[in-house]
Amino acid sequence: MCGILAIVGRSDVGAALYDGLTVLQHRGQDAAGIATVDGARVHLHKANGLVKDVFNTEHMSRLRGRIGIAHCRYPTAGSEGADEAQPFWVNSPFGIALGHNGNLVNTNLLRKELFEQDRRHINTGSDSEVLLNVFAHEMQNSGSLRATAEDAFRAVSAVHARCIGGYAVVTLVLGLGVVAFRDVHGIRPLVLGRRDSDDGVEWALASESVALDLLGFKRERDVRPGEGMIITEQGELLSQQCAEPKQHAPCIFEYVYLARPDSMMEDVSVYKARLRMGEKLAQKILHLRPDHDIEAVIPIPDTSRTAALALAQTLDVKYREGFVKNRYVGRTFIMPGQSERVKSVRRKLNAIELEFRNKCVLLVDDSIVRGTTSRQIIQMAREAGARKVYLASAAPPVRHPNVYGIDMPSAEEFVAHDRSEQEIEQLIGADWLIYQELDDLIWSVSEGNDDLNHFDTSCFSGEYITGIPTGYFEDLARARADHAKAARRVSKG
Amino acid sequence: MCGILAIVGRSDVGAALYDGLTVLQHRGQDAAGIATVDGARVHLHKANGLVKDVFNTEHMSRLRGRIGIAHCRYPTAGSEGADEAQPFWVNSPFGIALGHNGNLVNTNLLRKELFEQDRRHINTGSDSEVLLNVFAHEMQNSGSLRATAEDAFRAVSAVHARCIGGYAVVTLVLGLGVVAFRDVHGIRPLVLGRRDSDDGVEWALASESVALDLLGFKRERDVRPGEGMIITEQGELLSQQCAEPKQHAPCIFEYVYLARPDSMMEDVSVYKARLRMGEKLAQKILHLRPDHDIEAVIPIPDTSRTAALALAQTLDVKYREGFVKNRYVGRTFIMPGQSERVKSVRRKLNAIELEFRNKCVLLVDDSIVRGTTSRQIIQMAREAGARKVYLASAAPPVRHPNVYGIDMPSAEEFVAHDRSEQEIEQLIGADWLIYQELDDLIWSVSEGNDDLNHFDTSCFSGEYITGIPTGYFEDLARARADHAKAARRVSKG
Amino acid sequence: MCGILAIVGRSDVGAALYDGLTVLQHRGQDAAGIATVDGARVHLHKANGLVKDVFNTEHMSRLRGRIGIAHCRYPTAGSEGADEAQPFWVNSPFGIALGHNGNLVNTNLLRKELFEQDRRHINTGSDSEVLLNVFAHEMQNSGSLRATAEDAFRAVSAVHARCIGGYAVVTLVLGLGVVAFRDVHGIRPLVLGRRDSDDGVEWALASESVALDLLGFKRERDVRPGEGMIITEQGELLSQQCAEPKQHAPCIFEYVYLARPDSMMEDVSVYKARLRMGEKLAQKILHLRPDHDIEAVIPIPDTSRTAALALAQTLDVKYREGFVKNRYVGRTFIMPGQSERVKSVRRKLNAIELEFRNKCVLLVDDSIVRGTTSRQIIQMAREAGARKVYLASAAPPVRHPNVYGIDMPSAEEFVAHDRSEQEIEQLIGADWLIYQELDDLIWSVSEGNDDLNHFDTSCFSGEYITGIPTGYFEDLARARADHAKAARRVSKG
Amino acid sequence: MCGILAIVGRSDVGAALYDGLTVLQHRGQDAAGIATVDGARVHLHKANGLVKDVFNTEHMSRLRGRIGIAHCRYPTAGSEGADEAQPFWVNSPFGIALGHNGNLVNTNLLRKELFEQDRRHINTGSDSEVLLNVFAHEMQNSGSLRATAEDAFRAVSAVHARCIGGYAVVTLVLGLGVVAFRDVHGIRPLVLGRRDSDDGVEWALASESVALDLLGFKRERDVRPGEGMIITEQGELLSQQCAEPKQHAPCIFEYVYLARPDSMMEDVSVYKARLRMGEKLAQKILHLRPDHDIEAVIPIPDTSRTAALALAQTLDVKYREGFVKNRYVGRTFIMPGQSERVKSVRRKLNAIELEFRNKCVLLVDDSIVRGTTSRQIIQMAREAGARKVYLASAAPPVRHPNVYGIDMPSAEEFVAHDRSEQEIEQLIGADWLIYQELDDLIWSVSEGNDDLNHFDTSCFSGEYITGIPTGYFEDLARARADHAKAARRVSKG
Repeated sequence: MCGILAIVGRSDVGAALYDGLTVLQHRGQDAAGIATVDGARVHLHKANGLVKDVFNTEHMSRLRGRIGIAHCRYPTAGSEGADEAQPFWVNSPFGIALGHNGNLVNTNLLRKELFEQDRRHINTGSDSEVLLNVFAHEMQNSGSLRATAEDAFRAVSAVHARCIGGYAVVTLVLGLGVVAFRDVHGIRPLVLGRRDSDDGVEWALASESVALDLLGFKRERDVRPGEGMIITEQGELLSQQCAEPKQHAPCIFEYVYLARPDSMMEDVSVYKARLRMGEKLAQKILHLRPDHDIEAVIPIPDTSRTAALALAQTLDVKYREGFVKNRYVGRTFIMPGQSERVKSVRRKLNAIELEFRNKCVLLVDDSIVRGTTSRQIIQMAREAGARKVYLASAAPPVRHPNVYGIDMPSAEEFVAHDRSEQEIEQLIGADWLIYQELDDLIWSVSEGNDDLNHFDTSCFSGEYITGIPTGYFEDLARARADHAKAARRVSKG
Repeated sequence: MCGILAIVGRSDVGAALYDGLTVLQHRGQDAAGIATVDGARVHLHKANGLVKDVFNTEHMSRLRGRIGIAHCRYPTAGSEGADEAQPFWVNSPFGIALGHNGNLVNTNLLRKELFEQDRRHINTGSDSEVLLNVFAHEMQNSGSLRATAEDAFRAVSAVHARCIGGYAVVTLVLGLGVVAFRDVHGIRPLVLGRRDSDDGVEWALASESVALDLLGFKRERDVRPGEGMIITEQGELLSQQCAEPKQHAPCIFEYVYLARPDSMMEDVSVYKARLRMGEKLAQKILHLRPDHDIEAVIPIPDTSRTAALALAQTLDVKYREGFVKNRYVGRTFIMPGQSERVKSVRRKLNAIELEFRNKCVLLVDDSIVRGTTSRQIIQMAREAGARKVYLASAAPPVRHPNVYGIDMPSAEEFVAHDRSEQEIEQLIGADWLIYQELDDLIWSVSEGNDDLNHFDTSCFSGEYITGIPTGYFEDLARARADHAKAARRVSKG
Repeated sequence: MCGILAIVGRSDVGAALYDGLTVLQHRGQDAAGIATVDGARVHLHKANGLVKDVFNTEHMSRLRGRIGIAHCRYPTAGSEGADEAQPFWVNSPFGIALGHNGNLVNTNLLRKELFEQDRRHINTGSDSEVLLNVFAHEMQNSGSLRATAEDAFRAVSAVHARCIGGYAVVTLVLGLGVVAFRDVHGIRPLVLGRRDSDDGVEWALASESVALDLLGFKRERDVRPGEGMIITEQGELLSQQCAEPKQHAPCIFEYVYLARPDSMMEDVSVYKARLRMGEKLAQKILHLRPDHDIEAVIPIPDTSRTAALALAQTLDVKYREGFVKNRYVGRTFIMPGQSERVKSVRRKLNAIELEFRNKCVLLVDDSIVRGTTSRQIIQMAREAGARKVYLASAAPPVRHPNVYGIDMPSAEEFVAHDRSEQEIEQLIGADWLIYQELDDLIWSVSEGNDDLNHFDTSCFSGEYITGIPTGYFEDLARARADHAKAARRVSKG
Repeated sequence: MCGILAIVGRSDVGAALYDGLTVLQHRGQDAAGIATVDGARVHLHKANGLVKDVFNTEHMSRLRGRIGIAHCRYPTAGSEGADEAQPFWVNSPFGIALGHNGNLVNTNLLRKELFEQDRRHINTGSDSEVLLNVFAHEMQNSGSLRATAEDAFRAVSAVHARCIGGYAVVTLVLGLGVVAFRDVHGIRPLVLGRRDSDDGVEWALASESVALDLLGFKRERDVRPGEGMIITEQGELLSQQCAEPKQHAPCIFEYVYLARPDSMMEDVSVYKARLRMGEKLAQKILHLRPDHDIEAVIPIPDTSRTAALALAQTLDVKYREGFVKNRYVGRTFIMPGQSERVKSVRRKLNAIELEFRNKCVLLVDDSIVRGTTSRQIIQMAREAGARKVYLASAAPPVRHPNVYGIDMPSAEEFVAHDRSEQEIEQLIGADWLIYQELDDLIWSVSEGNDDLNHFDTSCFSGEYITGIPTGYFEDLARARADHAKAARRVSKG
């Protein structure tokens, strides 16, 4: 999970990129970076940490220029710390910086090709560095002495032809401007906004429309799957379809959990989609147990609030904020001779006993992945005196890895892996466990846009819209194991 | 606003104090400190910043000992940065550390007495340092070679006799243990908890019961107004009433805004009190406009959620989370040559247009102080398309300064200062402004505890339960002005 | 080893104290601190680290006031890190800050008395905190409501009566000014300087005159043994002899190693004293081996340069800087799987082979303590091709612990402990080892001042001018062992 | 001025590169960096600051691999802070890292060619980035799929053909090893060392032999002007002359000031060369004033000590260390309302009055550039009581800019610019000013190596061995001015 942002403005954009990153920070808290074009020079600063910690006044004062891109990153399997913070950068040809949200599934092959055919060295484990070099190589192949829009569209086409996976990308190409594109299925989001300033039109591209809102850009439209979009240094917007149309299939997990509720994606309000998820869950509950004994609906903060509220209203049961989130969680110190520390979930949540005491409560979460947190929360509800504890998940069981850029544990760690719903219910200790039906989830989102009726639902269905190269999952498992080993080695150093 | 915590345990308590502080952090984010007793030595670490930033592994490893106190601080008028972080410390007599939540109103007189009669130098502007030295002086007067419980109770009595104001206090007295007390009206909160470990009984005292919950202590009871409480180094609990009974009058603002909803104070659930505030507000609305046209009730996050929910349910109007809070607000950089930055409230909140478009909405806030944020939020609601924007405040108009430890701007800056409700409505741009009635607010809290029917409501009523020494408000205004001047001087340095 | 400094000026002295500390830094690189009087308030900042790292612009801007003291500290046995940085501070009576260079030998008794009789808690292992509390207690005993000069002189007298050891002390007494004093034997140095500014006379007191030079103060005279000196807040200089005259016996190690060559101490030029040490060594060499075969005299940088130069000139042998000191020594990282690191002395010194190849060289050091460095350096000289390697020490064998404030290893670690000079010569691998005679060392210093003919030479002679309380050396050994244990415990945490 | 280092070892070299950098730190204290090859990955860490501050344990633990290069940098005109720290890196072709000591004079042309013909973007003002891209472009031109030694030699030849200036370079080429080379005149130094470990031969290349000494490598020989040298990943040493022989002309300033005295350069001992400079100066003095009245020779520490010592011995006048250097210089704080701070030179040096009082002294410095420091030091000598103050410079007047990598002020700022020696003498306030003759300086160095009789002496003679492209000096002046302006702009931000 990452957030990307690009602005072509009429005055310095460093501070706007900074502000915009802060509202995309929920997509990645691990690292942040900004690159700007200042005349013939690119200024780049990136490091591990939250946006507010990565940039100080000196950094910001260097990030001059009215064109720039920004990125925030979530750690993904195989990541190596600050080396993999984005934007990435190559100086040949032209000077190109790139920020990427998503994941490629044919990286190993591309890496080999890049080295053997193109003699480009990929120095990190990041597929984003691979993607940048594919793009750069195709730009270089054009042979032009100056970067042209034509070259860039051709390079985007070549990227679509060579790269398999989900990707939304913003790049800076020196001498041309911002070049942006999305994978051919439109798995990862990218939305265009426009602002009319006194000095002319300004453009922005962002993972989520909330960044446009904050910065006063008006949402125009989503970048289309396979489309190449260029905003020249002069502020001209150029667009070209750079791949044959394929099945449009945005990632449905964005609506379930990842995106902010106040974002519009593919013309669908995430907030409204979540309300509909709650309604659908309520209908399922009423269908299964018309005479249910639920006395209160309690969200597990923060994401599930919206669905829980609609669920409660549809059920006509009281909605109650029975859990309070600790906003100031501290570090965990391991001290010799000290008694056992507070359990991790208790350090993040506290139950209001009055809402649980002797009641039958329905807890609502957006999804259930490992199930460990669910088990602890159910336990907390019981300790707070709940008579019965039910749990509803706004998404179906997560049974398959996400390979398009959402960080998840390995499939073996999913509580739903090789388990029936009944077995999961028992394992997490719920008196009743209700999962959303996949069709209901799809309906909840597609109801917002008549033209949208297909999604990447691979986590739930195991169907991968792009196809998966042979050996990919095996390599992934190996990389995870190696990474875990390397982490241990470093921590010993 | 500050949070205090004390533990007398059977094994090292440093990590528990740290964890406990994190859930009291909402009471003060400006500075934090911990002091522990380790044999004949006190370890103390304090600094400006959040708990998670103030303590590192090395600090924690030094904070050995099974007895300790902790403090988190909110900046108050006249504060001077890290010098005023707590606990404060004197080495004579015995070695005494102190953490204080509240504010004294006769500090100037006490400071003079301490210097002239007791030759104790007070080095900061902090009334907490004054309080410590009054206590220390009274301990010294006992003439005992070792600190005894009797001396401590006598010193607490003397503090009650000499100090006017609101205060909840935890102290470490070397050779005795923890000594705790509350002011004679019980304005500021302090609650006792108990945990039975294999090695014997353990005790904790905290500003709010949520810290006890986190650490597995069972809430026993609130420390009584004017009571002195000692937990000896051996773990024995001693208590004595150290002042004549006076009107019990806890600060009602704790229930409105300051305390966490999951805390119990004076046996009243803060959460339930807020639900009742919402109900009362709804009744007032129904009374004033039985045919109101409200289509949605929307809380201004986070504190007002509970009241808003009850309000909506009582009105039988949809409750909607129309504002999304930005959780990762960054720093404000002022860059030369950059276009105007995003307005401050927009950096903290974003409106979900769908909940506002063409609707008549009722926004709910816990209280209205300066009114500037209210005005900006109402403006945001209108820009999001609201047809009409009403605003309800769960508390009555704030018209008088709080002098018992809640940081507020000067009275002149209150929007309600010298203004009628109608004038305020107009100033903040609301189509309708509804304030809670003071009696309804009092009822909302006292309904939770039959024995509790009086409060400090001075912010609303201007009645100060302790009486206020002549000249106090004038001195306060002067200190504010001086402090503002000093701040300017430093920033120029 | 510590450096102390005090200034009573006519304008802010914070920056001058900072600058002055930097030229006293050779006396202590472990911690630094400054306290200033700003009206009725004391500003204090201290921390572990070099002066340049301890203070930033914000700290300095707070250290307002035209009166202040400063301290830099060397780690001593039993030290506990930042808790023991100086100046120390008590707020009762009056507010007193203190900086101390030296060491007391009856601390344990004083600590007991302070607690039992005076009920003052000493929180650290520092004898300086003890000294401050003795002084503070005696000030308190005066019973005056305001601190007077008379009280201060009486308190200094009481300190001299109660404290045994070496100490040079500067204090800030709020409402009075700076109070300074030296122990009755004048073991540790303190020198007074005067500067005439347009606004009146300004005074400074410093461990070494070099700080006066830097700040433009003219050296007036040394503070006398047992003298109490007060510089009032108004800038008046008061002095009184506060103890019966005893044998004046400054620490001779200051001249050998500790002080800067450009300092004047007791009207003796440290530089000239070192030249004389070199001459005396040369005479001994000529006496013992009139036909010596020394071809080059090579100092071990930096301290021994002066003596080595005079030695070479007296011998009429070439003086050569055969060792180059590495000025940028880095940290030591212990990496898994890496080959052995460079030996520690090689990281600090490098030999110029041309000055050693096939030569008989005389290396000169100021003194020999553990002997391990000497052995390594002699080895380096051999590896650089020296035919013969002689070593001369400008001081006699170090055989007894210093108890008056110079940090040394325990006596068992001295190479000269229980060994003859011949055995030492063999152990460190020298072809010839020449030690200074103690009488020659004494002559070298006393030649500079007719009135000065006695010194504390305890490291060499084992004669402690103050007498040593029974059990002191045993306690010291125990404290060392405990400290080593605690250090291991912390590093595991 | 920069220091470079490369090691091809048999085990991890990160710590050795770190240690080696610390003894090259005198060549550049502005920034430091290390790059290592770890399998197919390059680890790179670089930042502004001293070596000891740039690298922490985490950085070092990442710098795995048995092949690596390192760099320390001095700020040069036009530098832009951390962006220009070295090693620089390109990923196309192969992955190449480069560290460079020196300066090119045809950068502008190369930059243009690189962009227009090779489409390589140079993002900083650094000529080292240009040099890397020239080398990389030539490697790319080879068309090989794997980097071969043949390609590398061809690329070095092309660099020699295209680049004009002084440069010593170490590079990492992934898949090949370390490639190193010096400019065709051998202006900047680079020396090869060898160490035989149990696992095979290890090689190191360094700016100065002192780094080889520290790490236990035996000095083999200097890299030859125009030579290309490869140490393969397997540890094989390959060498080829990559340019026609030209006049060998090492920078004579290395011997005067820049290099450490314990370094061997071109088989000449820097230390011995400096002794000879002192002797030659003495001869000039004796020639000009056979009856001179010099009573003491006093070096201005640290560099001039060696020459001053030989000068004194030849004159048969006492050598005295009359100035003591402050080793702990702090920061300069500018405080409002404080009296004037200590003058800068006084914060770095202190005079021992006894060596000046009523004497005629000869101060010795290595060279005189701006003359401001000389003037202040002469003034200090007078204030210390000197009767007459003479000044000798071990180098001739500096009258022309150094364009081969030594940072100097612009020519207009040289005190000798457009001034006769007599005018300079007057300006700096010396009673007599003696400059070394250029021929004597040349003799002092060339005496150490029969084959070495030509040098780059451009600072003194204005003769630039490489020739200087038209417009170079004008561009340099402009860059300086722009940089000064930009610095002001940033500091305002």
